[in-house]
Amino acid sequence: MHSHPTQPESPNCVLCREDGGALVWRGSRLRLIRASEEGFPAFYRVIWNAHVAEFSDLSRADRAFCMEVVAAVEQLVREHLKPAKINLAALGNMVPHLHWHVIARWEWDSHFPAPVWANAQRSRDAEKEAAISARLPALDALLRERLQAEFA
Amino acid sequence: MHSHPTQPESPNCVLCREDGGALVWRGSRLRLIRASEEGFPAFYRVIWNAHVAEFSDLSRADRAFCMEVVAAVEQLVREHLKPAKINLAALGNMVPHLHWHVIARWEWDSHFPAPVWANAQRSRDAEKEAAISARLPALDALLRERLQAEFA
Repeated sequence: MHSHPTQPESPNCVLCREDGGALVWRGSRLRLIRASEEGFPAFYRVIWNAHVAEFSDLSRADRAFCMEVVAAVEQLVREHLKPAKINLAALGNMVPHLHWHVIARWEWDSHFPAPVWANAQRSRDAEKEAAISARLPALDALLRERLQAEFA
Repeated sequence: MHSHPTQPESPNCVLCREDGGALVWRGSRLRLIRASEEGFPAFYRVIWNAHVAEFSDLSRADRAFCMEVVAAVEQLVREHLKPAKINLAALGNMVPHLHWHVIARWEWDSHFPAPVWANAQRSRDAEKEAAISARLPALDALLRERLQAEFA
């Protein structure tokens, strides 16, 4: 267990004030939330708790810890949902507080193979999205269990 | 030094056949290239040499190695160019061969604060882009030197 002497907060930062989504698991250094992004039901974010803007602002140990959590989330999402691809990204242009998007993608999703931030390639498939959504509570429970076992 | 018993190649994969951009540095496990993406002069890619699709396909040690290279590139880009933000992403929907985009962003760039894959927010600024481009050969040399010293 690692503890931060300070957890710097930035007064106007939404990720300092709020969980930033449906909280799946919270650890001392980071948390996992599931986002509500239209058209992309299996969209998770690993959010660093302290207010740091860039990945390279973390220590080497914190970077390794953060990416092992990202990889664990990715792995469980893959095993449980069998997506066509996982997309990982830390952008933060709007909210410069380190958070990693972990997004499951399918050939049938509205944007594939374009990034989720690009223009849609086709209409959404409500039935397929609902089938994924129905499996998320079980996946969230698996994620919570694994993160608590390995990263608490 | 780590060596792969096999370097699997996929016959139709462009990142197995080609460097994938202007080669800055090549190591045994990965390489750094500078991409030519219109409007984003400081756009690098850390490309895993072997054909693996997902970050979680790598071993834990390889993930740490890969992300320390990404962080080193990010850090030198920040120090040398002072961008407003760094964007990191491993998407691979089109080319499912692990590669990390490391993209320097500025408030004046055509898309900021939107992702580079979204619609443009404004016209490009040829003068500002050229000023950045002029500094890239020196940055490439620093990157090559650091990666060779730390990651060869």
